[in-house]
Amino acid sequence: MSLQDYYSTRSDLISQDRARRRDNIRLASLTEAEKRADKVVRDIRAAEETSVWNSDHESIKNIFPGMEFLTGSPILSTSKEAIDATRLFKVMTKMPKGALLHAHLDATADKKFLWELALRHPILHVRATTPGPVSAANISSALPEFMPISEPQLSGALSLTDAGYSADKWIPLSQAREAFDPALGGPAGFDKWVLDSMVINPAEAYGTHNTVTKIWQKFVTTFRASTGLFLYRPIYNDYVRQFFLESIADGISYMEPRINFYTKFMFDASGEQNVPHREWLRDFDRIVKEIKEELKNEGREDEFFGAKIIYTTVRIITPEELQWYTEDCIALKQEFPHLIAGFDVVGDENVCRPLTDYIAPLLAFNARVAELGLDLPLLLHAGETLTDGGKADTNLYDALLLGTKRIGHGFSIVKHPKLMDMCREQGIALEVCPISNEILRLTSSMPMHPLPIMLNNGIPVALSSDDPAVFGSMGLSYDFFQVIVSSEVTGLITLGQMARDSLEFSTLPTSEKEEAIASWERRWHRFVEEVASLDPSA
Amino acid sequence: MSLQDYYSTRSDLISQDRARRRDNIRLASLTEAEKRADKVVRDIRAAEETSVWNSDHESIKNIFPGMEFLTGSPILSTSKEAIDATRLFKVMTKMPKGALLHAHLDATADKKFLWELALRHPILHVRATTPGPVSAANISSALPEFMPISEPQLSGALSLTDAGYSADKWIPLSQAREAFDPALGGPAGFDKWVLDSMVINPAEAYGTHNTVTKIWQKFVTTFRASTGLFLYRPIYNDYVRQFFLESIADGISYMEPRINFYTKFMFDASGEQNVPHREWLRDFDRIVKEIKEELKNEGREDEFFGAKIIYTTVRIITPEELQWYTEDCIALKQEFPHLIAGFDVVGDENVCRPLTDYIAPLLAFNARVAELGLDLPLLLHAGETLTDGGKADTNLYDALLLGTKRIGHGFSIVKHPKLMDMCREQGIALEVCPISNEILRLTSSMPMHPLPIMLNNGIPVALSSDDPAVFGSMGLSYDFFQVIVSSEVTGLITLGQMARDSLEFSTLPTSEKEEAIASWERRWHRFVEEVASLDPSA
Repeated sequence: MSLQDYYSTRSDLISQDRARRRDNIRLASLTEAEKRADKVVRDIRAAEETSVWNSDHESIKNIFPGMEFLTGSPILSTSKEAIDATRLFKVMTKMPKGALLHAHLDATADKKFLWELALRHPILHVRATTPGPVSAANISSALPEFMPISEPQLSGALSLTDAGYSADKWIPLSQAREAFDPALGGPAGFDKWVLDSMVINPAEAYGTHNTVTKIWQKFVTTFRASTGLFLYRPIYNDYVRQFFLESIADGISYMEPRINFYTKFMFDASGEQNVPHREWLRDFDRIVKEIKEELKNEGREDEFFGAKIIYTTVRIITPEELQWYTEDCIALKQEFPHLIAGFDVVGDENVCRPLTDYIAPLLAFNARVAELGLDLPLLLHAGETLTDGGKADTNLYDALLLGTKRIGHGFSIVKHPKLMDMCREQGIALEVCPISNEILRLTSSMPMHPLPIMLNNGIPVALSSDDPAVFGSMGLSYDFFQVIVSSEVTGLITLGQMARDSLEFSTLPTSEKEEAIASWERRWHRFVEEVASLDPSA
Repeated sequence: MSLQDYYSTRSDLISQDRARRRDNIRLASLTEAEKRADKVVRDIRAAEETSVWNSDHESIKNIFPGMEFLTGSPILSTSKEAIDATRLFKVMTKMPKGALLHAHLDATADKKFLWELALRHPILHVRATTPGPVSAANISSALPEFMPISEPQLSGALSLTDAGYSADKWIPLSQAREAFDPALGGPAGFDKWVLDSMVINPAEAYGTHNTVTKIWQKFVTTFRASTGLFLYRPIYNDYVRQFFLESIADGISYMEPRINFYTKFMFDASGEQNVPHREWLRDFDRIVKEIKEELKNEGREDEFFGAKIIYTTVRIITPEELQWYTEDCIALKQEFPHLIAGFDVVGDENVCRPLTDYIAPLLAFNARVAELGLDLPLLLHAGETLTDGGKADTNLYDALLLGTKRIGHGFSIVKHPKLMDMCREQGIALEVCPISNEILRLTSSMPMHPLPIMLNNGIPVALSSDDPAVFGSMGLSYDFFQVIVSSEVTGLITLGQMARDSLEFSTLPTSEKEEAIASWERRWHRFVEEVASLDPSA
């Protein structure tokens, strides 16, 4: 064989190996600007591999592209001097991201924003999960819980830190904050305690809780503080609005957040727990419309196409209880057909009930949906696990057999050749959450993430943020960054394909989808022109 | 759809998903003893998941099945009280393993054995890689180097730790040992220094060197101490013999170790560097025959079918230099057709030359081999990397296009659907080294290892140990243990299939292969009977 023949055969083989990739069509008809922009980004990445990622820093060891997000993020780095913001990240922040298809609404807006909101509501009360007072000895494990209480309770203790405090006592928030033990930092220490309780920190993710099981135990605690705030209607309204504004600012033009409807009533402004699910939707709908109107007035209507809700409950309920939620979801879909995107059941798949516990009610749901002629697909979490053949892994079989329209995570699907074929052939997209997967210890860092396997098998992928408020990864720029920085195959065009696919595999009706994609293409080409004009060596 | 129909469809889907697995044929015709043994092993594993792997221990955090080998191994645990030897591991030690197809000979025998050997040879001299004397400040990074020197040199310094010592000075080993600074532990401190230099320790693998790049930098240093000993012919002879005996004791009945022929001459007994490659082979051949004879006399001929050598050199040489080695290999194959299994070029694929640098000489090698009618395949390392599209990843294309008979590691092949198809269809086995991959930081732990993807895609796999002397994972039992403990799909029968495949995809000629497999099957059935008789709850 001549060398020329060898390299011709080699080129063919690489093409065959990559033949299933969804970015091929785009790559085959690149504009000049796209070619140039792709090269600029590859050049910037290559330069930063040496200038940013090649030498260790004082407080951060083992630096590499795609490293652990909580210690390695260009922005969130615990050592400000360690890593400056990269140019590659700045490019990511400007990219039009398409749709956000996998995010749990109550963990999407910045925690500081949430906390500032909370402090404005005197009705809110706080208690601690410790049996007695919060102290230096227990503050790192103590959790705050919040509830709006209309009639102030005269609890014996003035502060969570007073000797007489016991866990069942609700204390007005402002009072608890002001009277927080000065030895624990006073009001500032109180704020820090609350804010720390809502996030995962690097010492936990990469040290004390460095297994999937342990980090999930930590992860669920971050919701104990935020849930009581989120379920207070005035905060919920501001929070939803903030989620949209933050997402839009990051280049996301459409969202399908999951809302946890496990709790049947939210607290109203006066502290009564009487707000039913339909009111949650009406608020959501109103806020979407307000923001669309505001953007339209600013000539920015291309930046936001609206949002729908994925109805979720939790995989701890009985099959009988699930039936209540499926009926609730169907009733809401009938009342708000444009607002409900689909149905899901969430929770740590490794410890919660497997989908096999819910086959009968979910088959019944599908049958009822068909009977009613509704567009109400299942959008199930499955395969968010490291197990090989464990219940979380085999959830993938059930999600697909139940006809899921997309798969939430689908992390372990790369072990399943037949299921990957089904996703490719039937157009079932994966909602892949890179940073979530890493912090929740499914992968140690991005180079170990199975995303390249999914892409090379031609499965549609929508990059998603999952719980950005808990991970400190607001928006989608961080997830896009972690993906592009850790693969030599993936370039700007691949990211563009994933962004476009996030709209393609959304639940938008056909005409709206076409419009949203056309709008995305316009923004994409403006973005590409901008990137193409950058000097990679600057 | 009825529940009955659902579960029938589900069962079909799982079968289709697993249809390519090579253990299917075996699973379809299990003996009663195999069924019982498989269940016994699953029951033991399930019991130990709770009793051994579910609670943290004093000195080891984050315990889980398949955890990091250097801290989690049942035997090697740094905390003796932490984890007792598991019953599952004891079963593994008794299993007939088939062939060892991927191990670098100079890192296969126990380091303590090697060191005891070295101390018996007064001709050996030692020097340190430090510029000046070895001291408390530099001992953790200082490396010992050894060389046989026939005419004792009168170096000015008595010890490596004397103030006047400089790095180029060779000192007689016994003298250096006796005079090692008492503040550094004297002779015992010297022994510890040498032994530590030949292995990777957990603080390095999981702390200071926790990236592929850094751990490889450490890894290559472990050979600086051992190479000088290994290349002394009397030690080489004893070392090869020890490798066979340790392997046979662990249930390995045939070996194809890689020998690094980069160095053109070994040192003879008198310290002259004049032993050519053909003498290395003659020694190897004689030792194989001696051990076969010894085992035959003990009625244990089933336990050892012999061994062949995979000729290797290093991917730092020029293409022109490679030609010398391919010609050397062909000449040796012609002289010892039963001893040479194939040809390979080794080294850290992420930093060494890519295979594309060697296309011309390797094509020429193949042409010459065909012309001469030799059975001398390429057995190339490829894809031992985390990169996606980097040179180590794309080495896979070249290894396959060059017609490699097996792939050394092939870790990143799971990203390449077409290449996995080729391996399955053309019967190209992967030499998969689980513990090596983990310690060299391609995977954080076994649950993240891509082995299940390889198995579900029907690629033949031979589990291998790579460099057990460096990893402290002597034999193959540890690798088999790490595989079975971390997957619910994999059971004893899957391990049996891999053991059998290691013989099936060896380079043994057909008739010998059939004999070796028949012998393995006999041992397997004895093993299975023994396991089947165990009480899992005992």
